[in-house]
Amino acid sequence: MNIREESLKKHYEWQGKIEVVSRTPITNSEELSLAYTPGVAEPCLEIQKDYDKSFKLTRRSNLVAVITDGTAVLGLGDIGAEAGMPVMEGKCALFKEFADVDAFPLCVRSKDVDEIVRTIYLISGSFGGINLEDIAAPRCFEIERKLKEICDIPVFHDDQHGTAVVVAAAMLNALKVVKKNIEDIKVVINGAGSAGIAIGKHMLKMGVKNLTMVDRCGIICEGMDGLNSEQEYMATLTNREHKTGVLADAMVGADVFVGVSAPNIVSEEMVKSMNSGAIVFSMANPTPEIMPDAAKHAGAAIVGTGRSDFPNQINNVLAFPGIFRGALDCRAKEINEEMKAAASYAIASLVSDEELSEEYILPKAFDKRIGKTVAQAVMDAARKTGVARI
Amino acid sequence: MNIREESLKKHYEWQGKIEVVSRTPITNSEELSLAYTPGVAEPCLEIQKDYDKSFKLTRRSNLVAVITDGTAVLGLGDIGAEAGMPVMEGKCALFKEFADVDAFPLCVRSKDVDEIVRTIYLISGSFGGINLEDIAAPRCFEIERKLKEICDIPVFHDDQHGTAVVVAAAMLNALKVVKKNIEDIKVVINGAGSAGIAIGKHMLKMGVKNLTMVDRCGIICEGMDGLNSEQEYMATLTNREHKTGVLADAMVGADVFVGVSAPNIVSEEMVKSMNSGAIVFSMANPTPEIMPDAAKHAGAAIVGTGRSDFPNQINNVLAFPGIFRGALDCRAKEINEEMKAAASYAIASLVSDEELSEEYILPKAFDKRIGKTVAQAVMDAARKTGVARI
Repeated sequence: MNIREESLKKHYEWQGKIEVVSRTPITNSEELSLAYTPGVAEPCLEIQKDYDKSFKLTRRSNLVAVITDGTAVLGLGDIGAEAGMPVMEGKCALFKEFADVDAFPLCVRSKDVDEIVRTIYLISGSFGGINLEDIAAPRCFEIERKLKEICDIPVFHDDQHGTAVVVAAAMLNALKVVKKNIEDIKVVINGAGSAGIAIGKHMLKMGVKNLTMVDRCGIICEGMDGLNSEQEYMATLTNREHKTGVLADAMVGADVFVGVSAPNIVSEEMVKSMNSGAIVFSMANPTPEIMPDAAKHAGAAIVGTGRSDFPNQINNVLAFPGIFRGALDCRAKEINEEMKAAASYAIASLVSDEELSEEYILPKAFDKRIGKTVAQAVMDAARKTGVARI
Repeated sequence: MNIREESLKKHYEWQGKIEVVSRTPITNSEELSLAYTPGVAEPCLEIQKDYDKSFKLTRRSNLVAVITDGTAVLGLGDIGAEAGMPVMEGKCALFKEFADVDAFPLCVRSKDVDEIVRTIYLISGSFGGINLEDIAAPRCFEIERKLKEICDIPVFHDDQHGTAVVVAAAMLNALKVVKKNIEDIKVVINGAGSAGIAIGKHMLKMGVKNLTMVDRCGIICEGMDGLNSEQEYMATLTNREHKTGVLADAMVGADVFVGVSAPNIVSEEMVKSMNSGAIVFSMANPTPEIMPDAAKHAGAAIVGTGRSDFPNQINNVLAFPGIFRGALDCRAKEINEEMKAAASYAIASLVSDEELSEEYILPKAFDKRIGKTVAQAVMDAARKTGVARI
């Protein structure tokens, strides 16, 4: 039985991967009168007097909504709101397992940016954070931007920022292995969707100076037709030599390749054209842009993928649980660039110089230190940048 | 320490009365790949092919949203969306404890009917049922009506229907004690808000022929000014003698008084003016319309209140957990009149003829039989009326 068949069978058995349980005993009248009427009137009145108390007297302070519109679910595309829910539930289970964050899955039956934003805003008083998930680009950018403007809790599109944080962590350690400085390298990102653009922005923030983005239309260049507003913005920050051409042209002389695009579109020749000590993060799932053995054969020094059956798995689960844990614990107003950078450094720090090798640049997903280490770093950065409320 | 102070202290300790936990072990790569990527793609595709599978492959089939706008929280009034959440969380804890229903609390930051309806509709694909709570009248009627029209899952405003179901159950048994037939009695309901109107409608459905409703403006009468649309509708079904006057006038010769109004507004004289074998359900909380000892002193045969410290507590918790359990288990399209009537009869049936007395007309809240008995009756009624999907 293959993994997808086995997973389907398990999903029928599980009947849902999350469950809502009671934290209070209600087995007699006295307990009922404390957890419910008439006692419950008092915490209600406390919150009415002081809105901030909603973070003390309800579950908000530990609760994140995991929300999709079902338009970009895994690699499956627009499969519908309800069909995205097995992924959302899985994400919620990971939040609990990896950082003791209570996360609740929601799907929104709309593809209209303003309607999605309004819906999420209107229920945001029920949560301490919003994790957007599997929403198609470019809609996801606008939804996140608008929500950040109006919500008083952190809003984080994991497909963008979680991915960016982990890719950057992987790159930091890979650069140590090949002994290159982040300021000197040339990076090529293939795929200018939500993940690719977020990775690009985050890399610039982390110190990359020479970045080229490529999409189906070829190398992204300032003034090009057919770009969405985020791609246009990135075009002003990347490819400062104003090169044009296809992916193969971009990869010549590159130090780092990051693929968040499509299976099998990178050839061995392309990898051969990269600089020596080439780093290849080939993250299309389940089939990478180039398979690890082929990339190695073509001379890549370090290869990472999204898969657990190869070395160097680049997996969001290293980031999002700890990031939200940290943001919730200091009641951060937002998850800002500094907090994301801190998360990248924290993840990278969990591989010691002795352990570090071409086949070991990231800690394993089940390393118990990750959630706490990331949370602490994120919290410190939140305090330093003045966005922590407590 | 009084109960409200103690409750506040407990709420600070609890830090939320509900918690979201994982139902799947995720402790190694294989488990991760079954609960999340890549395995999770398969249940997603199954739901895309067949929407109904969302009730099999996600938690929907056991999941109810408990939703408020914070406008009529307990007796506290419009205290704001977030301030209503301790009640919503308490309700969710009760759902779990009394019927193993997973319930999740949400508040909606809006007072606009259409906006609330749209918000709830858009996220309804995440749930198997919607329990509306503590929404002010008359807005609550319109919200519920519109949601029922567009949602494919049951929508139930517990303040209306849960209360009505339990009051009717109490009345059925009280009538046995005083040996009167439901067709022959005169009922007076004081308070024509959401609960009062729902109680009135349900009583008519259960067989009451002579019903009078009273509100702040006095006896409700067809053609009266200042009624909302629900009150106008009730005016066409009640007070067929077209009486006018105040509450004291209405109560003369009544067999049953139901108060869902305000403290201390019923005098001993008013109770004395009722028929012999008078039944007084004085449910204003925490201070009833008339205290039980005063009502008894004035000649009432049976007195019920909303309080646990007097006999005959009329408590919604006898109804809503089992009603939703039954509705979820047969995937009912709605919770209709027949299902509510069945719930009333089921609750009443749990007091045997031997046990039945003036001080024991309803089963105790912690009677383990209630949830299952109500669920079975509700499910049978759903099947009989053709609204059960499985």
